Amino acid sequence: MELYQRDDIEAAVRLDREALEAVEQAFAALGRGEVVQPPILSMAIEESNGEVDVKTAHIRGAERFAIKVSPGFFDNPKKGLPSLNGLMMVFSAETGLVDAVLFDEGYLTAIRTALAGALAAKYLSREASRRVAVLGAGEQAELQIRALQLVRDIDTVDVWARNRESAEAYAERVRGLGLTVNVHDDVRGACASADIIVTATPAREPILSAQDLPEGVHVTAMGSDSPEKRELDDQVMVRADAFVCDTRPQSESNGELKAFVKAGGREASVPFKVYELGRVIADEQRLRVSDASITVCDLTGTGVQDTAIANFALQRLVK
Amino acid sequence: MELYQRDDIEAAVRLDREALEAVEQAFAALGRGEVVQPPILSMAIEESNGEVDVKTAHIRGAERFAIKVSPGFFDNPKKGLPSLNGLMMVFSAETGLVDAVLFDEGYLTAIRTALAGALAAKYLSREASRRVAVLGAGEQAELQIRALQLVRDIDTVDVWARNRESAEAYAERVRGLGLTVNVHDDVRGACASADIIVTATPAREPILSAQDLPEGVHVTAMGSDSPEKRELDDQVMVRADAFVCDTRPQSESNGELKAFVKAGGREASVPFKVYELGRVIADEQRLRVSDASITVCDLTGTGVQDTAIANFALQRLVK
Repeated sequence: MELYQRDDIEAAVRLDREALEAVEQAFAALGRGEVVQPPILSMAIEESNGEVDVKTAHIRGAERFAIKVSPGFFDNPKKGLPSLNGLMMVFSAETGLVDAVLFDEGYLTAIRTALAGALAAKYLSREASRRVAVLGAGEQAELQIRALQLVRDIDTVDVWARNRESAEAYAERVRGLGLTVNVHDDVRGACASADIIVTATPAREPILSAQDLPEGVHVTAMGSDSPEKRELDDQVMVRADAFVCDTRPQSESNGELKAFVKAGGREASVPFKVYELGRVIADEQRLRVSDASITVCDLTGTGVQDTAIANFALQRLVK
Repeated sequence: MELYQRDDIEAAVRLDREALEAVEQAFAALGRGEVVQPPILSMAIEESNGEVDVKTAHIRGAERFAIKVSPGFFDNPKKGLPSLNGLMMVFSAETGLVDAVLFDEGYLTAIRTALAGALAAKYLSREASRRVAVLGAGEQAELQIRALQLVRDIDTVDVWARNRESAEAYAERVRGLGLTVNVHDDVRGACASADIIVTATPAREPILSAQDLPEGVHVTAMGSDSPEKRELDDQVMVRADAFVCDTRPQSESNGELKAFVKAGGREASVPFKVYELGRVIADEQRLRVSDASITVCDLTGTGVQDTAIANFALQRLVK
């Protein structure tokens, strides 16, 4: 059994095409029904404003599967500690023995989340997409841009964040990637010329309205991953020509579909069809029927991404 | 963060009164409603005849909680490897940071399972219990006896197992504990004079019938911990004056209540009341109303036992 620490994992795994392909193949396997993926185990530690999630999945026939533990303790920043943390365990799918523990402190989760965003854009956004609006200015808001660069020739980023200072700091960092970055005071302004909109916030009320969507845009909603969070107004779903999520049960419990379903949204916008990203990839579905189509993808994060990135990391680390 | 291997964990944690008390207190906290205990995460790896379970629980206000991963790969013995395996991770309940990983390979699970059996006997069996019938001849069948010695003055063990050779080997081992051990060819004979019956088999069909129960006996059913397994005939539940389980939802999904409930057993034996071990301990319920009462306890294994034994182990190891 091998143990790996964050520094070594960061050195081995970056946002590159091979990592993208590993996650892409995992989604395709999910889409083909080749994955066992139980519901997330989730436990609240209320007295510490914390929660811990456990995700896992097994791709049938694969040599190894991973189990990921993700604690999120939201008072940690007051103590000088990061909110997000965690580790991944990699097991032999033949014997159940532990092959490795990756003490990545959430790094691999950030990476596989960014890569899923890139895959959503690869399969749903216009190929000529150049300009990205980002709502949110955290780590994931930056990783999303870096991952998008793997699939689209991005040249301009328009950022909005609740806190202007954070947006300015974000702009500085992203200019370092060789991009033009504009900071906006309102969502509408940030999105006005976007080819792709990425929402990467912990919002609990919708921040993106249907009126903010320019023609032909693709939207990836990253933020909502728990029952309390949401980023998209119901009308965004109604306006979308195609709505995709990573897994429908998770979108309905933790993602953008939960409020929509509660509000009777499915009936309100007949026929509302929900596509899943794995199927889109496996079947190479072309949901964008024209440059004017509006596509929306809601990502809540799946165990198969964890199994994919952990296996990928282990291969790189063993080398 | 500290890492501990099985040898050190075995040296630090044994079946003793302090360990028993740690698990007893955890059950009492569960009974008082002070525990967050999400449903088990379970995933099958069909191509390897394997499964992996993840259990966790948090005792409100406790400094740490544990997450346990238990792989069971039932073709492993053919490969010279044990079927059961696993590890426990101990996290700070204040920050979510990993404090320790216990690579116990299932040892602590075996210990906390045996201790739960001892607690069932402590609260439900006659105080003067001396003679134990054991159905099954595996590791847990032995640990159950050793744990019972903490709470009752056991002098005789009657063992039955599907395989006579295993039963003979078991008898040899248990004689080493200073006990008289008789090997039986049938369940009825093994149980005839029992004060306590322990079932510790992977049976998928009932092995214990109501007719096998002597007056005043206490039965602990350890074996069933998954939807396919069961050890008790429905009539055992009907015959019981008191039926206790560790958690009712688990007994109904993985334990002895599942077939009983399906068969409409609850209605068939009105009033059938289900008690939970945590409440029995917390409230010091006296469910045995006379020496003739028959009591039954179904244990499926709970996350709070894991959190308790992992914390206990860590305290001992840090010393």
